[in-house]
Amino acid sequence: MTLDLRAHIRNVPGFPKPGIVFKDITTLLQDGSRFQKVVDQLADRYRPKQVDAVVAVDARGFIVGSAVAYALKAGLIPIRKKGKLPWKTHCASYALEYGTDTLEIHQDAFTPGSRILIVDDLLATGGTAEAVVKLVRQLQGQIVGVAFMVELNFLKGRQKLESYGVDVLSLVEYDQE
Amino acid sequence: MTLDLRAHIRNVPGFPKPGIVFKDITTLLQDGSRFQKVVDQLADRYRPKQVDAVVAVDARGFIVGSAVAYALKAGLIPIRKKGKLPWKTHCASYALEYGTDTLEIHQDAFTPGSRILIVDDLLATGGTAEAVVKLVRQLQGQIVGVAFMVELNFLKGRQKLESYGVDVLSLVEYDQE
Repeated sequence: MTLDLRAHIRNVPGFPKPGIVFKDITTLLQDGSRFQKVVDQLADRYRPKQVDAVVAVDARGFIVGSAVAYALKAGLIPIRKKGKLPWKTHCASYALEYGTDTLEIHQDAFTPGSRILIVDDLLATGGTAEAVVKLVRQLQGQIVGVAFMVELNFLKGRQKLESYGVDVLSLVEYDQE
Repeated sequence: MTLDLRAHIRNVPGFPKPGIVFKDITTLLQDGSRFQKVVDQLADRYRPKQVDAVVAVDARGFIVGSAVAYALKAGLIPIRKKGKLPWKTHCASYALEYGTDTLEIHQDAFTPGSRILIVDDLLATGGTAEAVVKLVRQLQGQIVGVAFMVELNFLKGRQKLESYGVDVLSLVEYDQE
């Protein structure tokens, strides 16, 4: 039987600030059988694409991305907030509501032409994922997909990403806050 | 053939500050076959323990903990830095070189008596893991083990953790910096 993911995602009004309803995936993942199904849904979709490595985004992206990498027998490559990776990096900045933030990838994270699946927990405006797409392309990775657990349709991140010609998948979509 | 983990961990002198030699596990995990072996080594060890959930520590602990949870068909529970979890939490503070830091777990992360495996990337002084042990016990979890990829023996974190009566495992030990 299909797992109703939405029924296990908790709405937390007012987090991280008033007016936002946070989609809390911890209630979905804390159960072993549900966690298995979430990961398998993503892995099954991308298995035919022969993924060399999953690029997962600091920090909630690691929670699903790592297990998807394992299920696909792919490598796991972290993209981290500025200053967290120890070796030589490329970086890309993206806009926040106020100011900017910067993400980094190791310069030797993968070899050119590698088949890369990008995984994060949430697609909102797409600003973070856009920076990740740029970093993967800077290293000449071939992006086979960009996958999310949750997508907030009304913030139109999908349109932003698809303008880069990448394939976007989310397991659960929300039409409104 | 056994994988020589140490050969794939990169030493980065001077990170995050002068005098420290950082053990960079990204070079180990970015290859699919190596990532698989690392996760399997941990999962095989704990499979007989019937783990209900893996508690993984923000953020590098997620990278291995999530895949281990999947391999064990267990749930995945994140312990996060203060202010990152959206719902009601318990918190525990631990000492840093200067000042303190605080970790949080959701109050409903698991039911009392659950069999919990704690996973993080690095055992140094054991301060972080000690705080995690306290949080899991506050929720009345039964700790079946505390597992790390890398252990810095000379910082004696193992002694600190074993004083709580928990079983400690690391895949690679370093005797000196």
